[in-house]
Amino acid sequence: MRKLTHEEIAKKRLSAAEIVSIERFPVTVLLDNIRSLYNVGSIFRSADGARVGELILTGYTPAPPRREIEKTALGATSTVPWRYCTDPMEAVAGLKKSGVRICAVEHTDRSRPFHTLEARDLPVCLVIGNEITGIRPGLVAAADVAVEIPMYGMKQSLNAAVAFGIVAFHCAAIAAGARPRGQ
Amino acid sequence: MRKLTHEEIAKKRLSAAEIVSIERFPVTVLLDNIRSLYNVGSIFRSADGARVGELILTGYTPAPPRREIEKTALGATSTVPWRYCTDPMEAVAGLKKSGVRICAVEHTDRSRPFHTLEARDLPVCLVIGNEITGIRPGLVAAADVAVEIPMYGMKQSLNAAVAFGIVAFHCAAIAAGARPRGQ
Repeated sequence: MRKLTHEEIAKKRLSAAEIVSIERFPVTVLLDNIRSLYNVGSIFRSADGARVGELILTGYTPAPPRREIEKTALGATSTVPWRYCTDPMEAVAGLKKSGVRICAVEHTDRSRPFHTLEARDLPVCLVIGNEITGIRPGLVAAADVAVEIPMYGMKQSLNAAVAFGIVAFHCAAIAAGARPRGQ
Repeated sequence: MRKLTHEEIAKKRLSAAEIVSIERFPVTVLLDNIRSLYNVGSIFRSADGARVGELILTGYTPAPPRREIEKTALGATSTVPWRYCTDPMEAVAGLKKSGVRICAVEHTDRSRPFHTLEARDLPVCLVIGNEITGIRPGLVAAADVAVEIPMYGMKQSLNAAVAFGIVAFHCAAIAAGARPRGQ
């Protein structure tokens, strides 16, 4: 088995010209009160890979341009459509009006495993909350659905950027038709 | 919908006493030449959540105890069995002798999507390579199988800790029987 070269991998990827014209997946992401600049950058990088439709930064989540965000985003702040909106509830109201299902990535009394999300759950907006306190209660209450990553160890949760990556790539696979039954 | 309290979530997790006695999943992880202390810590945290059997640190991958590792591991260095081994090839030879399938998480000429890994692929050792250069060619050549995360954007790859989380939680789901057909 042989590792592919950077050039061989690059050929399989979209170019900068293609990325602005391609139809993006019906997956929006709302980051509320994310504290870490590195997490925000890492989420941008994963959002590019998962072809997220839009990244909405709310509350005190830091927004580009910031050197620390770029350090982990590695250029993805220019390939992922994004906007800043102070109030997450305002963003959620607009998304709901457009028929987008609001999905809290959070431990709630009604959370289901993330891998049960399926094509009929799209378009969806994944909500990621603060690294320590999670999503604000009012925002959880406004969600249509909640998913969680089954945890098989002692820790209660994952790093926010890792948790986002796990759920986002599941949604991308659904959107791409790779897992049509959401399994 | 209501967010669970820390106490409610903690009740659903294993205790420190339970974690040392429980049978762990047949998923080993080999980190080769990982540079970032924060990535190593984050991988420990995710490895706890995915109930990884053993984490093997090789090459110049930093090992606990290190303050920066603990900052992102949040205590998982004491719940995940781990060892340091200078030479990854030596570790791989031992694993192969025990019937463990070596799985490079890498772009190779024979990579398949990670979500095609299924129960019959276990026990497995996921190999994660350097953040910039990936897995060393000799180690790729020694792998039995390679998986990659389908990338739908412009960037070639994900952060190493995010990529690990995505593949590890898929393996955990297989091991837990949540996705018996590996879908």
